[in-house]
Amino acid sequence: MYSVFESKITVRPDDIDMNNHVHYSKYLDYLLAARYEQMHRDYKMSMHEFIDRGFTWFVSNISIEFKRAMKLGDLVFVKTQIQSYQGAQSTVKFWMEIGEKRKLAAEGIAVYSLISTKSGRPVRIPQDIVEKYSI
Amino acid sequence: MYSVFESKITVRPDDIDMNNHVHYSKYLDYLLAARYEQMHRDYKMSMHEFIDRGFTWFVSNISIEFKRAMKLGDLVFVKTQIQSYQGAQSTVKFWMEIGEKRKLAAEGIAVYSLISTKSGRPVRIPQDIVEKYSI
Amino acid sequence: MYSVFESKITVRPDDIDMNNHVHYSKYLDYLLAARYEQMHRDYKMSMHEFIDRGFTWFVSNISIEFKRAMKLGDLVFVKTQIQSYQGAQSTVKFWMEIGEKRKLAAEGIAVYSLISTKSGRPVRIPQDIVEKYSI
Amino acid sequence: MYSVFESKITVRPDDIDMNNHVHYSKYLDYLLAARYEQMHRDYKMSMHEFIDRGFTWFVSNISIEFKRAMKLGDLVFVKTQIQSYQGAQSTVKFWMEIGEKRKLAAEGIAVYSLISTKSGRPVRIPQDIVEKYSI
Repeated sequence: MYSVFESKITVRPDDIDMNNHVHYSKYLDYLLAARYEQMHRDYKMSMHEFIDRGFTWFVSNISIEFKRAMKLGDLVFVKTQIQSYQGAQSTVKFWMEIGEKRKLAAEGIAVYSLISTKSGRPVRIPQDIVEKYSI
Repeated sequence: MYSVFESKITVRPDDIDMNNHVHYSKYLDYLLAARYEQMHRDYKMSMHEFIDRGFTWFVSNISIEFKRAMKLGDLVFVKTQIQSYQGAQSTVKFWMEIGEKRKLAAEGIAVYSLISTKSGRPVRIPQDIVEKYSI
Repeated sequence: MYSVFESKITVRPDDIDMNNHVHYSKYLDYLLAARYEQMHRDYKMSMHEFIDRGFTWFVSNISIEFKRAMKLGDLVFVKTQIQSYQGAQSTVKFWMEIGEKRKLAAEGIAVYSLISTKSGRPVRIPQDIVEKYSI
Repeated sequence: MYSVFESKITVRPDDIDMNNHVHYSKYLDYLLAARYEQMHRDYKMSMHEFIDRGFTWFVSNISIEFKRAMKLGDLVFVKTQIQSYQGAQSTVKFWMEIGEKRKLAAEGIAVYSLISTKSGRPVRIPQDIVEKYSI
């Protein structure tokens, strides 16, 4: 079992759509912001370091269930947990919770693929990276 | 089997992210733009008319597979097809294709729930709407 | 002379554009986020309270000078200062600074108009609001 | 006097904010989309060609007056006209009009600076480019 890490996101007014809720595509932006922060702060290998080693991460799959609307003023907690590694891919479960009562606003699964920036093709995740991320 | 409808989306420069591709959350915005156009143009019952009848649509689930990056200058075709109705929910399959060769950039499933704007709760899709949308 | 208030903005990955900088329209989103926070935290009359009283603020004018690119990882400080009130309008100067050295990334002037949500027309800013905001 | 060129923009649902209007920062995105199209279609030298020659354009200044809200379903026409060249800078006037009656929604001035991608510094606009753009 891998660790669950958490990031705090502040809803910005420009995230709100005509329904007065956080626009549904912004959930993916919150997830991205959380992963960036956690790569740097928790896994100690930031996106920058991946790029310096000639890699980047692309999203292969997103599956997200919207449970509860998020509103301006809501404090959003984005939790993520790696589920598994397989070849070039890493599967990450995520939860978005709001407020002190931590009500579940969304949950889902993201599949990321490691890409060689040189070839533009997926590459097997190197063992030292798997280890760094196996916490 | 329900009809497949199609919308043409022009990629805007502000859709492009630091990887020089259409940012992954923008795919959901393209899907939304396509559904809005198709509700009005193809199903002949626009989002406006839903709101006038005291309804709105919320997204319950999105499952999307990213197959190929979309770039600035790409012509994007968003195709959608209703799969089924069940209670308050409608399930829609979608495809995003690029260029004249219609290369598949993404595909997925969206589940929408009809919401009463008065109660904020899901409501069974009225029979006349199911019929209007059963083309 | 009115007070200068400050908000801290965290650059999100989705704010970055194809030039690897914060996209130029996002500066306006940062300004909006800062004003919302400052209305609530510093002036003690949030946008919510304006709406409850039948008002909203629209932007009439923006003049912005881009001095220095902001990047992912930059800590952004958005400072604003009311310059004057006149009828329905309030003029606000703003500065965006980055990092501990507070390098100037942008500065400009925003003119806001108080709108009656009922009529949709500009209305003279009520005296009690001018006083609340004259700090 | 330089030519006025025009681009047609379709408002997308994700451009709409909590006030049910096109969000104010999106006006800058519409301007950018219009300039990109016009560089390619009207001036016959696209942003791509600038990048291939080692240049890029940065925005130095924007001054915009918001006159009328734009809504979902509005057809937006973005007109631009070069005003002058000076050193590395080009000054462009723009207008945004809506609907068949061409009601003025916004107007303003943008100042762009030509940047050498190698040095990251402004460079005098080469004479052959000034000529290409002096139509």
